[in-house]
Amino acid sequence: MTAKKKIPASTVNRLAQYLRVFSRLEKNGTETVSSREAADISGINPAQVRKDLAYFGQFGRRGVGYPVAELCEEIRRILGLSREWNVAILGAGHLGTALLMYRGFGLNSFNIVAAFDTDPDKINWELEGVTVYDLEELKVQAKKKKIEIAIIAVPAEEAQSVAEKAVAAGIPAVLNFAPARLDLPEKTLLRNVDFFSELEMLTYHLQN
Amino acid sequence: MTAKKKIPASTVNRLAQYLRVFSRLEKNGTETVSSREAADISGINPAQVRKDLAYFGQFGRRGVGYPVAELCEEIRRILGLSREWNVAILGAGHLGTALLMYRGFGLNSFNIVAAFDTDPDKINWELEGVTVYDLEELKVQAKKKKIEIAIIAVPAEEAQSVAEKAVAAGIPAVLNFAPARLDLPEKTLLRNVDFFSELEMLTYHLQN
Repeated sequence: MTAKKKIPASTVNRLAQYLRVFSRLEKNGTETVSSREAADISGINPAQVRKDLAYFGQFGRRGVGYPVAELCEEIRRILGLSREWNVAILGAGHLGTALLMYRGFGLNSFNIVAAFDTDPDKINWELEGVTVYDLEELKVQAKKKKIEIAIIAVPAEEAQSVAEKAVAAGIPAVLNFAPARLDLPEKTLLRNVDFFSELEMLTYHLQN
Repeated sequence: MTAKKKIPASTVNRLAQYLRVFSRLEKNGTETVSSREAADISGINPAQVRKDLAYFGQFGRRGVGYPVAELCEEIRRILGLSREWNVAILGAGHLGTALLMYRGFGLNSFNIVAAFDTDPDKINWELEGVTVYDLEELKVQAKKKKIEIAIIAVPAEEAQSVAEKAVAAGIPAVLNFAPARLDLPEKTLLRNVDFFSELEMLTYHLQN
């Protein structure tokens, strides 16, 4: 039942999408789903869905479909969501504060354990039970609080140097919200959330 | 000089990335950039950079490179960023409030003109100069305030019905922050920002 094969990045990405769809079905009490239904709801084609779900092993049964609850549990396990992850927010400005106040993290296996800033007015603040530390303390706190993911929420021009501090503090993964491309060592896991690029895709098409 | 050809979506996406890079250079006072430098900073290969920038017309000059300020202006024009866009935030919960407080929009051609919610406690609030209206007023306010982009910041289970209200109100473009796949008419422009998928790409690799 356990997937031992290496899963391609594009499949991992789709697994996250399937999890959205299947956990909705799970909440609504749906017990099984066919690959065709899964395809309809997720917008991914049925052949692709069958191929992706094949990574799970012998889950689908012809004529019965995939058991929703087990599928959710298995996808969560594969994605590493069976446990909580310790997250720090670097930058307690507008975006960082916003992320601190967003309780969606807590609902989704992510535990925000600390925030960091360089502004003396913000240091030692407490927001939603999370303390804002001096960025200089990142290395010490990263060890103490076992920080596993750093979310970069500083302006573009500071993003690279702040991300390097996260790497130096031994934090293995970075999620970058700053509209800047980061150049980090290969061992560091890096993903970007650039919502201005998405807005610009809209404005490009709106005006054309 | 004006690009009349239809630009592929992947190029538009890269144009947004180039704009990040080039506006940093512009700020630092850099006057010209070679395609190789642009490639180094953006992380996109030089042949691709040259190909993309060719859509602009006869900008690059052999041995001199591309003029940074003109390039920025031209990319902004192509992406529709020479003017401001009226944006509404649908949902004034944690995420919506966070987005309202994020001044990055104002700095990037996006003018948040209204927010909407169904919670009587939130309706008529004012946050950063933006009023929270009753979602029932969306159609009226969309016309009055010429809302062009709706940002969906409601929980996943409400995202589809709220997005449909935006479509019914005549709003032509939707940016969806809810972790849900939306099914909207083809005429509506839709982009998704799913930062939990990005976090899950990290946790998958962290545990493997």
